[in-house]
Amino acid sequence: MPDSPIRKLVPLANKAKEMGRKVYHLNIGQPDLPTPQRALDAIRSIDRKILEYSPSEGVLSFRQKLAKYYHKFKIDVDVEDIIVTAGGSEAVTFAFMSCLDPGDEIIVPEPAYANYEAFAIVAGAVIKSIPAKIEEGFALPSIEEFEKLITPKTKGFMICNPNNPTGYLYTQSEMNEIRDLVKKYDLYLFSDEVYREFCYTGAPYISAFHLEGIEQNVILIDSVSKRYSECGIRVGALITKNKEVRRNVMKFCQARLSPPLIGQIAAEASLEETETYLMDSYNEYVERRKFLIDGLNRIDGVYSPIPMGAFYTVARLPVDDSDKFCAWLLEEFQYENETIFLAPATGFYTTPGYGKDEVRIAYVLKKKELGKALKILEEALKVYPGRKYRNHE
Amino acid sequence: MPDSPIRKLVPLANKAKEMGRKVYHLNIGQPDLPTPQRALDAIRSIDRKILEYSPSEGVLSFRQKLAKYYHKFKIDVDVEDIIVTAGGSEAVTFAFMSCLDPGDEIIVPEPAYANYEAFAIVAGAVIKSIPAKIEEGFALPSIEEFEKLITPKTKGFMICNPNNPTGYLYTQSEMNEIRDLVKKYDLYLFSDEVYREFCYTGAPYISAFHLEGIEQNVILIDSVSKRYSECGIRVGALITKNKEVRRNVMKFCQARLSPPLIGQIAAEASLEETETYLMDSYNEYVERRKFLIDGLNRIDGVYSPIPMGAFYTVARLPVDDSDKFCAWLLEEFQYENETIFLAPATGFYTTPGYGKDEVRIAYVLKKKELGKALKILEEALKVYPGRKYRNHE
Repeated sequence: MPDSPIRKLVPLANKAKEMGRKVYHLNIGQPDLPTPQRALDAIRSIDRKILEYSPSEGVLSFRQKLAKYYHKFKIDVDVEDIIVTAGGSEAVTFAFMSCLDPGDEIIVPEPAYANYEAFAIVAGAVIKSIPAKIEEGFALPSIEEFEKLITPKTKGFMICNPNNPTGYLYTQSEMNEIRDLVKKYDLYLFSDEVYREFCYTGAPYISAFHLEGIEQNVILIDSVSKRYSECGIRVGALITKNKEVRRNVMKFCQARLSPPLIGQIAAEASLEETETYLMDSYNEYVERRKFLIDGLNRIDGVYSPIPMGAFYTVARLPVDDSDKFCAWLLEEFQYENETIFLAPATGFYTTPGYGKDEVRIAYVLKKKELGKALKILEEALKVYPGRKYRNHE
Repeated sequence: MPDSPIRKLVPLANKAKEMGRKVYHLNIGQPDLPTPQRALDAIRSIDRKILEYSPSEGVLSFRQKLAKYYHKFKIDVDVEDIIVTAGGSEAVTFAFMSCLDPGDEIIVPEPAYANYEAFAIVAGAVIKSIPAKIEEGFALPSIEEFEKLITPKTKGFMICNPNNPTGYLYTQSEMNEIRDLVKKYDLYLFSDEVYREFCYTGAPYISAFHLEGIEQNVILIDSVSKRYSECGIRVGALITKNKEVRRNVMKFCQARLSPPLIGQIAAEASLEETETYLMDSYNEYVERRKFLIDGLNRIDGVYSPIPMGAFYTVARLPVDDSDKFCAWLLEEFQYENETIFLAPATGFYTTPGYGKDEVRIAYVLKKKELGKALKILEEALKVYPGRKYRNHE
């Protein structure tokens, strides 16, 4: 399995911290927002004597509340369609292992969440990708491009909507194009929708389950990590109306016995949190988004499209090589004894050469800290030896 | 992936319960003993505001305490040798995926924990097994038998010690034979030692790490599930001194981001539990073991060797087919409106025909309940249509 560019930087960040340098982490999707109070209270008031296995498919009452939660988004699923997993990661892994045979291919628009490739490798499957372009705001590449990739080995199409890393939100017409392709070739549509609460443009969030005629093809990937700031509890879900797929997924679930019990208790309580909680998170991200994107585009040579959802943006920097630049930030640079940890975008592309002048920035810090991070970036670009000068598009 | 015989029975058990029948679960390794009070207290006093990702390799303070815990068993490992996983299941899965290529073979004495096969399938690897015999108390088959199985594709040897499902405890000379084989062919030795606290004969527990000259070959699998009655928290560990293996394992760990945070908090607190806790568990299992095994061997036609560790036994029953018998117990039989759920031993063998007249029984219930279960078994065998009569060995 290949090493991701971001992971190679972790030791450099640790070294910088050991030297007493403050490092702003814009590299990971770990929100700084509080976990819902109800979740924390639920954990603190556990009165069990034994922390026993939960059912392999997840705790029934949690699954029932999840079904109701999806109904609010007009995702018409039953309790039995929902299988609880150890985070979205396990959901993707089990989806791939259940639906794909070694050598099978999945088509993915990129930049894409880097671990999809790791999970595909686990399943012995191969990711074929078409790069979206920053100049087009990372809109879905033309569907004809995808169609050209289809071979007899193509078994699925994977999207992340709202998108990590770009923050792109697929439009109705793009989703319809994906649906038509999925239908025409009878593919699985793996749809990672863990950021559904975070859509900022007033445009509707379109779930893969809203698309008509492919109900048996959709495998929805979900997680409570991002929406409730509960990354550590490892609770996600795989949702599908396809019985055969569920039967296969359950075999993997049974082999690993059980998803985390206490995490499910926290997640179930979170579903009963007031609307205010998610509204507060939403408002916070809306403000940060504006602050960050405006700030980025004010820096000479930097360009960021406006992300429409999630809490990331992929920005273009005037640098020779984003891997080198991100390493340099941690190893060589400091501004008032502080620096920033950015994710080189090369890790989100499989197409060679792509992402070389792009980074992913997560706005999971408070505005004040984002402001400092922007200042550091600006100062860094002034002195970075690999700076490129060119027309600002 | 094949369906396990035990899983096929779960719907029958549920149906029996729906009919108002009491079902004694002797089929699973879910102890009824309480979780340590310190673990429950640690969870109840969590004062974090955010349930954030833990490091991919696990929380440092937990790993430090684990290292000290292993030292008590003369397992000489450093903190960096320990990688925390989501239960022993994930540890086995990551071990296989990191050490084995598709088509590679692992040698396993059987009967063996059924999910090893599932995890091998995930890694694309193949399990080759040699059956141990109930007449020999499930001692390790002759090492020459194993050696005959070795091909250029053989990459590892997997043991579970103390053993699930048989309760067998490998002797020093058996462990030395395994060591010699591992050394001679430079194999990995995957050693599942989650039951190390439960050795009942005064004979020493011999860890794979106690074997000299194969320090780089050993991958130890551990879990807190059984020793602290914490199956639901999903915390285990993979321990190896082999840097290259750890590097590979860490890639899988990073892809799934993080093991469960709250589980690690509970497990860390458990390591500080007084010796009394484990002594009480031990004494309880010793008593149950005697009670169950004596009771089994008193039933006409039933034979159980004396398990030396863990909390299972594999017993031979005078029946035509243990899959049929176990299904019949749940579907057709009742004694005073109660019945028992046993695990057909066929699921623990891959060699065809083996386990047909054997069942695994877990002594995870109180003596009073075990007594009722024994009575039910005795009555059931009197009327089971597929009863076989033969000499009692």
